[in-house]
Amino acid sequence: MQRTSFETMNCSVAQCLEVVGEWWSMLIIRDAFLGVRRFDDFQSRLGISRNILNVRLTSLVETGVLERVPYQERPLRHEYRLTDKGRDLWPVLTTMREWGDKWAAPNGAPLEVVHDACGEVMHLKHTCSTCGEPADRRSVRVRPGPGATPSDFDRTALVAPT
Amino acid sequence: MQRTSFETMNCSVAQCLEVVGEWWSMLIIRDAFLGVRRFDDFQSRLGISRNILNVRLTSLVETGVLERVPYQERPLRHEYRLTDKGRDLWPVLTTMREWGDKWAAPNGAPLEVVHDACGEVMHLKHTCSTCGEPADRRSVRVRPGPGATPSDFDRTALVAPT
Repeated sequence: MQRTSFETMNCSVAQCLEVVGEWWSMLIIRDAFLGVRRFDDFQSRLGISRNILNVRLTSLVETGVLERVPYQERPLRHEYRLTDKGRDLWPVLTTMREWGDKWAAPNGAPLEVVHDACGEVMHLKHTCSTCGEPADRRSVRVRPGPGATPSDFDRTALVAPT
Repeated sequence: MQRTSFETMNCSVAQCLEVVGEWWSMLIIRDAFLGVRRFDDFQSRLGISRNILNVRLTSLVETGVLERVPYQERPLRHEYRLTDKGRDLWPVLTTMREWGDKWAAPNGAPLEVVHDACGEVMHLKHTCSTCGEPADRRSVRVRPGPGATPSDFDRTALVAPT
C-alpha cells in the first residue's frame, strides 16, 4: 500500500501521524523515553535493520522530535535525544500503551508505570485543564478552530455524537 | 519500506500500533468519532481510494475497533460504528490532536473541542487515577508488569530517566 503524505491536510491528527505515524518511529520514541540514546542500542532492542533505523532516526531529527548530539570526539560519535517537541509525545505514547494494556495484553501489562506521588501503578485520568472535571468523548463537542479552512466547516457540519 | 507485523512484540505500544499504526486507520477512526458511519462519507471526506478504504475498514472490523451493522434491508446496506474497543481510542486520538495543534498547526487549531462542563475550549490535563496528582514523564518510573517476559526485564533494566 502506497504511503501518502498528509502534509497538506488541515488536521492536527494527520499532522501528528505525518511525524510519528510510521510504526517504527513510535517505537523509537518509546525507547527514547526509556532512556535509549545510541544507534546500536536502538538497533539491538528493536531488532530493526540498520538501514531502516537510520532512515527513521534521520526523519525524526528532521521533524525535530529527536536531536543528534555528539557524545565523543575521537572517533566522533553521536547520540539521539528527545527534544521538547519529542517529549511532548509522552501523552500519545502513554495513551497508546494504556489502550494496548487493556485490549491487547492477555497476560497482563508488559510494563507498569509507577507514579512517584503515590507509589501506585499509574493509570491516566483525563480532566479538563480549565475546570478540572473529567474529560471524555461524551463530555465534549467540536467546532471549527482559528486555523479552520472552509472545508473544515463542512467537516464539522457532518458531525453527530458517537 | 516493508511493513512488519508487531503482533509478536510483548509491548502494548506496539500492540496499539498493530491495530491503528497504519495512517489511514487513525483518520478513519477520527472520522468515526466525528459521527461518520457510511462508506461513501468516509471515502469523500478522506479522499482515499475505495480499494484502500475497503481494506482499512475490513481490518478495523477484524481487529474489533469498528463493527459493520446493517442500516437498510433492500438493498442491504451496512454502516461502520465504533465498538467499545474503538471508543477507548479517544484518548489516543485526542493526545495526537493536541500535539498536532501545538507543534504542527501554524495557523491555529483546525478544530476546537469544547468541554460541556465549563463551556471552554478543552485541553487535557493528565492526572493519576489513584491520587489525582499531575502525571507526566518526570513523575513516573517503569518496571516490568505482570505480562513481562524475561527480555522485558532487560528492556526496563536499560532504562534511564529522560
